[in-house]
Amino acid sequence: MKEILCGTSEITGASFSIYPMTDRFVDIILSSLKEVDTSKVWLKSDDVSTCVRGRSEHVFDVVKAIFLNASKGGDHVVLKAKFSNGCPGDSAGDAFMAEDSILMNNGLSQKINQEVATQFALYPLGIPGYMDVIMDQIKTVDQQGVFSGGVHYASRLDGDANSVFAALESAFEGARNSDSSHIVMTVTMSANSSSRKEGQ
Amino acid sequence: MKEILCGTSEITGASFSIYPMTDRFVDIILSSLKEVDTSKVWLKSDDVSTCVRGRSEHVFDVVKAIFLNASKGGDHVVLKAKFSNGCPGDSAGDAFMAEDSILMNNGLSQKINQEVATQFALYPLGIPGYMDVIMDQIKTVDQQGVFSGGVHYASRLDGDANSVFAALESAFEGARNSDSSHIVMTVTMSANSSSRKEGQ
Ligand SMILES: [Ca+2]
Repeated sequence: MKEILCGTSEITGASFSIYPMTDRFVDIILSSLKEVDTSKVWLKSDDVSTCVRGRSEHVFDVVKAIFLNASKGGDHVVLKAKFSNGCPGDSAGDAFMAEDSILMNNGLSQKINQEVATQFALYPLGIPGYMDVIMDQIKTVDQQGVFSGGVHYASRLDGDANSVFAALESAFEGARNSDSSHIVMTVTMSANSSSRKEGQ
Repeated sequence: MKEILCGTSEITGASFSIYPMTDRFVDIILSSLKEVDTSKVWLKSDDVSTCVRGRSEHVFDVVKAIFLNASKGGDHVVLKAKFSNGCPGDSAGDAFMAEDSILMNNGLSQKINQEVATQFALYPLGIPGYMDVIMDQIKTVDQQGVFSGGVHYASRLDGDANSVFAALESAFEGARNSDSSHIVMTVTMSANSSSRKEGQ
């Protein structure tokens, strides 16, 4: 059971899935993956999810680009992602920590305008004061103009996907600078939902 | 920001979504909801997810039944769920804690045989020894014959959905009996995946 032992590696990982609610879901996922440069992250997919690992900025860059490319055709597409930092590292992943910090997909992503509805939650593990860390990062997100309030078990963000991702990344990085050495952040992001268009 | 203040309520909540990867996704979700008795849980849906709250056993009963009914037609359906205990309670939810423990949907669910591939992760918050709690519950799950090993940022379970749900529920309940007073468990469950059928 070594797989759940935590290290001190600074590697960030995201375990995520893209759900296009259409019969063409396989095509959409594959063509989105084809358009995104994943050369600066370790990547592995199985039948349940995809995992990318590496420097934090590249992990966010790749997940954002895959979601935006999958949703730009107008289909209802949902991203479910779990970002983690602090557990676990290994040599295969740590090799990617040597990459520079130049983002490979941000230019492409910034050209895609996509309104999204998002829920996220932060879990700073191992410390009694985890609620203080959460509250501090909600304030960070609120300052970025996309915070829509609390929902059960999460906070809600609305706005352009690029802005929402920027807020999510800053909350995650802020939590990494707390006393907690193991941060988990869950994200659900929905684009082109018909129930949203109807104003629900 | 009162929404993220934690209480001492024993109410369990699940924030979840069902993703049927087909053009008929709305029909599948609605007809599945129609077949499930949700009378013993507080329930609210928005454009991002559905939240059910109440006694732990009813929360698991309802989420399992909705997923099984959505997947029984053979479509590729994924459940993403986050179970929480320890945060937060309110009077609207707490009213459902007075329900008895007779499950409303288990008879229906047990009749549905559905192989699933699952990833789950436990996050016991607020305590330095959270890894011990996680390890203990991995052992609990392993004893139930559905544990397939660790994957990045999660553990994998394979088997019949009813057995996998029983293991998930016992891990969650086991963690509730630990020193942590705030437990979060994330679950991704996939049924009828074509990549799985091809043996990947
Ligand atoms: Ca408890």
